[in-house]
Amino acid sequence: MKKNYLDIIDPIHDFIRVYEHELSIIDNPIFQRLRRIRQLSGAHLTYPAAQHTRFEHSLGVMHIASQAGNALNEKGILKSDDIEILRLSGLLHDIGHGPFSHLFEEVIQEKKFSHEDFGKKIILKSEIGDSLSKNGYDKKLVTKIAFGDSKFQYLNEIVSGALSADMMDYLLRDGYFTGAEHAKIDHKRITQSLDVHKKKLSLERSALYSFESMMHSRYQMFKAVYFHKTVRAAEVMLLEALRLSDDEFGFTTFNLNEFVNLTDEYILSTLISSKSMKLKRARQFAQDYQNRKLLKCVFERILTSPIDLKKTRTDELRSTISKKSKVEENEIFVDSSVTPSIPLAPSKNESKSIILISNENGKSSAKEMSISEIPVVSAISGFMNILRIYTHQKNRKKVEIAAKSIIGDLK
Amino acid sequence: MKKNYLDIIDPIHDFIRVYEHELSIIDNPIFQRLRRIRQLSGAHLTYPAAQHTRFEHSLGVMHIASQAGNALNEKGILKSDDIEILRLSGLLHDIGHGPFSHLFEEVIQEKKFSHEDFGKKIILKSEIGDSLSKNGYDKKLVTKIAFGDSKFQYLNEIVSGALSADMMDYLLRDGYFTGAEHAKIDHKRITQSLDVHKKKLSLERSALYSFESMMHSRYQMFKAVYFHKTVRAAEVMLLEALRLSDDEFGFTTFNLNEFVNLTDEYILSTLISSKSMKLKRARQFAQDYQNRKLLKCVFERILTSPIDLKKTRTDELRSTISKKSKVEENEIFVDSSVTPSIPLAPSKNESKSIILISNENGKSSAKEMSISEIPVVSAISGFMNILRIYTHQKNRKKVEIAAKSIIGDLK
Amino acid sequence: MKKNYLDIIDPIHDFIRVYEHELSIIDNPIFQRLRRIRQLSGAHLTYPAAQHTRFEHSLGVMHIASQAGNALNEKGILKSDDIEILRLSGLLHDIGHGPFSHLFEEVIQEKKFSHEDFGKKIILKSEIGDSLSKNGYDKKLVTKIAFGDSKFQYLNEIVSGALSADMMDYLLRDGYFTGAEHAKIDHKRITQSLDVHKKKLSLERSALYSFESMMHSRYQMFKAVYFHKTVRAAEVMLLEALRLSDDEFGFTTFNLNEFVNLTDEYILSTLISSKSMKLKRARQFAQDYQNRKLLKCVFERILTSPIDLKKTRTDELRSTISKKSKVEENEIFVDSSVTPSIPLAPSKNESKSIILISNENGKSSAKEMSISEIPVVSAISGFMNILRIYTHQKNRKKVEIAAKSIIGDLK
Amino acid sequence: MKKNYLDIIDPIHDFIRVYEHELSIIDNPIFQRLRRIRQLSGAHLTYPAAQHTRFEHSLGVMHIASQAGNALNEKGILKSDDIEILRLSGLLHDIGHGPFSHLFEEVIQEKKFSHEDFGKKIILKSEIGDSLSKNGYDKKLVTKIAFGDSKFQYLNEIVSGALSADMMDYLLRDGYFTGAEHAKIDHKRITQSLDVHKKKLSLERSALYSFESMMHSRYQMFKAVYFHKTVRAAEVMLLEALRLSDDEFGFTTFNLNEFVNLTDEYILSTLISSKSMKLKRARQFAQDYQNRKLLKCVFERILTSPIDLKKTRTDELRSTISKKSKVEENEIFVDSSVTPSIPLAPSKNESKSIILISNENGKSSAKEMSISEIPVVSAISGFMNILRIYTHQKNRKKVEIAAKSIIGDLK
Repeated sequence: MKKNYLDIIDPIHDFIRVYEHELSIIDNPIFQRLRRIRQLSGAHLTYPAAQHTRFEHSLGVMHIASQAGNALNEKGILKSDDIEILRLSGLLHDIGHGPFSHLFEEVIQEKKFSHEDFGKKIILKSEIGDSLSKNGYDKKLVTKIAFGDSKFQYLNEIVSGALSADMMDYLLRDGYFTGAEHAKIDHKRITQSLDVHKKKLSLERSALYSFESMMHSRYQMFKAVYFHKTVRAAEVMLLEALRLSDDEFGFTTFNLNEFVNLTDEYILSTLISSKSMKLKRARQFAQDYQNRKLLKCVFERILTSPIDLKKTRTDELRSTISKKSKVEENEIFVDSSVTPSIPLAPSKNESKSIILISNENGKSSAKEMSISEIPVVSAISGFMNILRIYTHQKNRKKVEIAAKSIIGDLK
Repeated sequence: MKKNYLDIIDPIHDFIRVYEHELSIIDNPIFQRLRRIRQLSGAHLTYPAAQHTRFEHSLGVMHIASQAGNALNEKGILKSDDIEILRLSGLLHDIGHGPFSHLFEEVIQEKKFSHEDFGKKIILKSEIGDSLSKNGYDKKLVTKIAFGDSKFQYLNEIVSGALSADMMDYLLRDGYFTGAEHAKIDHKRITQSLDVHKKKLSLERSALYSFESMMHSRYQMFKAVYFHKTVRAAEVMLLEALRLSDDEFGFTTFNLNEFVNLTDEYILSTLISSKSMKLKRARQFAQDYQNRKLLKCVFERILTSPIDLKKTRTDELRSTISKKSKVEENEIFVDSSVTPSIPLAPSKNESKSIILISNENGKSSAKEMSISEIPVVSAISGFMNILRIYTHQKNRKKVEIAAKSIIGDLK
Repeated sequence: MKKNYLDIIDPIHDFIRVYEHELSIIDNPIFQRLRRIRQLSGAHLTYPAAQHTRFEHSLGVMHIASQAGNALNEKGILKSDDIEILRLSGLLHDIGHGPFSHLFEEVIQEKKFSHEDFGKKIILKSEIGDSLSKNGYDKKLVTKIAFGDSKFQYLNEIVSGALSADMMDYLLRDGYFTGAEHAKIDHKRITQSLDVHKKKLSLERSALYSFESMMHSRYQMFKAVYFHKTVRAAEVMLLEALRLSDDEFGFTTFNLNEFVNLTDEYILSTLISSKSMKLKRARQFAQDYQNRKLLKCVFERILTSPIDLKKTRTDELRSTISKKSKVEENEIFVDSSVTPSIPLAPSKNESKSIILISNENGKSSAKEMSISEIPVVSAISGFMNILRIYTHQKNRKKVEIAAKSIIGDLK
Repeated sequence: MKKNYLDIIDPIHDFIRVYEHELSIIDNPIFQRLRRIRQLSGAHLTYPAAQHTRFEHSLGVMHIASQAGNALNEKGILKSDDIEILRLSGLLHDIGHGPFSHLFEEVIQEKKFSHEDFGKKIILKSEIGDSLSKNGYDKKLVTKIAFGDSKFQYLNEIVSGALSADMMDYLLRDGYFTGAEHAKIDHKRITQSLDVHKKKLSLERSALYSFESMMHSRYQMFKAVYFHKTVRAAEVMLLEALRLSDDEFGFTTFNLNEFVNLTDEYILSTLISSKSMKLKRARQFAQDYQNRKLLKCVFERILTSPIDLKKTRTDELRSTISKKSKVEENEIFVDSSVTPSIPLAPSKNESKSIILISNENGKSSAKEMSISEIPVVSAISGFMNILRIYTHQKNRKKVEIAAKSIIGDLK
């Protein structure tokens, strides 16, 4: 049976086929809002072309999840209906993201919220959920798969994880739009080579090179983009502005009507035009961010032990540097790769292993391989503990000296 | 001598080398503002990834102008100093663009202004001009080349025209970011094959295929993007919103301080949050635009004669349709490809010919070739006279019937 | 049910999935032979990277035919079994090609043979047919679809024609390997938008731009590669060498055992090392071809009327030029775009129309559109009647003068 | 001054500009011969599209060497004349390669020859050297730079080494033509970021990511292509055929006239058509290679210590396995990554360090960085000691058992 569809042109996937019931969700203002949340917060100040948003990414995740679903369907593992649910879960997996994505996440996390909490509310209690139900889809199941809570682990993993549509789309897309792509993400090979073993998502061994290259790409994107020194300078400023304006915007008093307005440019222009004395500092950060007057990195160190970087430790460090440098604490910014505002930090819920399926002479066997056994991947793990100290241009010298004497000189 | 530079990563050109004096211009808020003006106004509502801005494009034009300059320098035609001037002119050629680029242009044109006028003021009378002078560049010459007024026609043509850096960069970039690319723009081949004949920019005949493919690409981009039915629906709405809010924003009372704030999202969010009764209609258009509730096209016709489409004629048409359909005039929108808000309309200042240089057996000969002699190009010219009638969903039927009976049925 | 398969890496399609029964055909020496027949005969002497062969192309056609089949299967038009047959027909559609593909074709056509005749024999009467039967496939049906003879016209058309897997693969592949690609072939969009109307293959109107771009690409490839002046110089030499050595190799006395050996390099090295006096002239052509000492084009004309170019006319022309120039007839080579050795000549069995399907508001309607109604395509048709005269360097002047005085000066 | 040139279309570099004096070298049969030597010997039996040859690669190396030269010229390090010499050295660096490139190399190495020896003779003592001299170039200098012997180390290094035109072109090209590309080779960024420090070629630190990605690509290409199990199966067969036919062809009795004929397909077809009893075994290998009946790998092991793999050790191993398995020695093939026939083996003359130049605040400082300090690179080094045992299908079981019991089970 022919279903009505529309082909949306997308540079990553050529075109993304969208069916009628999906279109009704996409055309809802709650979803359209994602067009105004950049995928990479402040990265476009360093990579000018990185203007892409959560909107395109969400379509892309739906598309890759669908390809993965089709591959498993051809292998007799998944039913057609499951593919439809997978598509919807992929489409909605980022619906709870606030302005500046991961930076917003860090602010709300401090109050024990997450974008997943917001996402669940949005799907279950808004017109989006109604639309799902009306079209005969189980909105609870969609929500569970979208946020990794369903009992079908392989479905959760198709949406997010080391072999997920989410990772493949963001690596492809971030590489394409920044221009910083370093490795080929052969997502078609990977999705076509997915399998399921003991309810877990697994990969045919013949596609191992493709997986390795994806891991290499992720590592390079982390270094070159997500945790780039200047990209983080901009994001540290945004983070500060968000924290300082939480009361103003009520980020954590989730109210759908207001939440829909909270987009990147809205936050910035509201702050910049605000006359409130309370927002003076937030306003300055917003203004400087907009004019690309960024904080300077005065110290950078690759750490050997991740334990060093607990939140309490960074606060303590800030305080010590302040005393030593005689620069006010709120002029000193300690940034580290365990900062929750960094997307994709290898430290976060990292998959530790991958299941590889070998098909030889008609027999198939599975083997769980620790990711650290893959040479090119193991080289990467553990690397990303970078500690950086930022400050304004005017305090540069003082803070640099203090930081070095406290933490030790970096070669 | 080594000059200090920075390589800015760009997906179209891999990286764009920027020298110190150029960086000081780019880092000025007047230039940074271009980051908030989308290259293709409302096209991202149809091509979601088309979020790219005048900022990246301006860097790209500088880059290609530089390549063209180098090629002519190697052939002994241009001096190194000219290349530096060319780079600056390319960088600044779009500095006068207002919010929504060409749509803004149409609004100010009604009052006899153009973005070139604004551009000249900005270069000559702001910190940007100061910065040029301070670094030893002739700001008047830069301005002239940037806007096609210098006596060195080939320099003007490197910035804008049928063989220009501007056209090559926007076709490459619009194709890349929309995902709608249809033909290869071999800009390196074209720039390497540039020559000068009687002070005019010309092309080696061996690169003719590359030129033809570029013309084909432009034609396809026009149909598929710039004048796409739905893209124009969004832009017709923006155009109306801009016209209705001219008093509010004072678009034509050019004041640099205010001009710097006039960006796409600023206009939209200011309108949406405005309580002014006068702006009610503009507000509604902004809101609907943002939520992608677009006008509907009820009539479309390819016209045989361009004369039909003069401004007075379209006003008259609007009025006649209104009377016949009993739908208010301001609910009826007549859009045609001669509308100045359409970028790149073939009708605008189109180059009529191209000079081809043949190098054979050590002898070189020039031949001016009418563009209409190139089969694939002649097929395109004259095509673009499309007339469309848009209205809101609720008036759809009435306006459709009236339009058809007045203009005649479209097959 | 999981079937055993192997993924063959291919730069055009990332990877091509091959099932076990297909692999048994591919691994047969008769099929392996295609690895030694270049896709573009002599084009690599002008486009050095064009070393690709009929082998990769055949895999690619199978792959695209499979995508087309899947799209029609999803729309409820085709059964899964049909897809398997389509794949096999695509795989085998070029199995009858001799050395230098289309050049060989021209030589055997003079004796009323074609590569299709050879292809049918090979499939039906060799181990390949046995292998098909053994695996439960109807070898007659595969043959019919492969060569356009089945009663299911849309299946024939998926293999060859204006919307075919063959055309999409060769345009993609020839563009990729020559480096001369001029337009994007969006084969995925096209295959996904295929439909069937009254047993004929048709296309959804929304994919019309993609079709137009493909037509443009074909046109540019024709001019820039297939009928390029220097490419043809090499091929005219090969053609002459093949004609002169027909007796030696017995091209038309089809014998499978011998046919398997007839590959590009085999013909060349056999001729070059031959001591036979009878082959002296063929040897010289082979030697010169190998060392890239090519014939010179002394005359070129775009003809207005295709009738001018009948075989008899070109023979007559050769003779007249010979008399006038006092250069022997066999030193004068008349080449025209109706020469059967030119692949893809627009004059050959060209599709005259395309059926477009519009889906609006749930209703679908079909419209047959003459290809000449598509502006960009109509510009192309009729163009390709180029007449060229080639000769050896030493006769250059004489033949040029004679040709010009007889046919009239160009431009 | 304008120089006459021709643009050769190339898919890797869009087009390669070739000047008249270079064209006269390229058009010599000695150089044309490279069109018939595949870049990757037997890899096309696994990666069907890998039909590219040393010819295109040589043009590509000239092109990249030229870009590198230009970058150093702009920085005031190199003169224009040096660029011309560099181009010629790049063009000719592979001129001494015999059939099947590295496999031939291994055969002649056993007799203390190398392709560099042949290359020097060809340049200095043939028409190619004459052509260089005639055009005013120092043929001795060209030869020295081409083979790494000049006193200008940075010139040698531009042709071959870790930052060389050779490596960049082959990685780009092999990735493009196999379809196995895994990482982006940003050769323009790397060449634009070259510098010279104490007569050694060095790299600006800002391009370090590009270098890392190139190293990653090389590593992946090694695993996925150059030392792929099946690719090596084909090459082990070729190697054996070459060894067995050395007397017949006189590979090491270098005679230019004969050498010019020694191409891949010539060797194969000569062997296949030979009736000589002495060549029976070589003939069988050639035939099986051509029909893709490959040796089977029965044992594979990643070795911890490179010392294990000395030639004597592999001979001994062969003999022991033969005795144990009761399969004749000449039916057992021991292949390891130290085999000289493997291109690019990390063990060969590997660069151990790279000099990085930091430019900050107008000051530049150099630092020699051991390649093992680069995390992603160090992961790779030492990896490539793979030992494999191949045999014919019929001996598979016996040899497998013997090999395992002698060397120990893998995994």
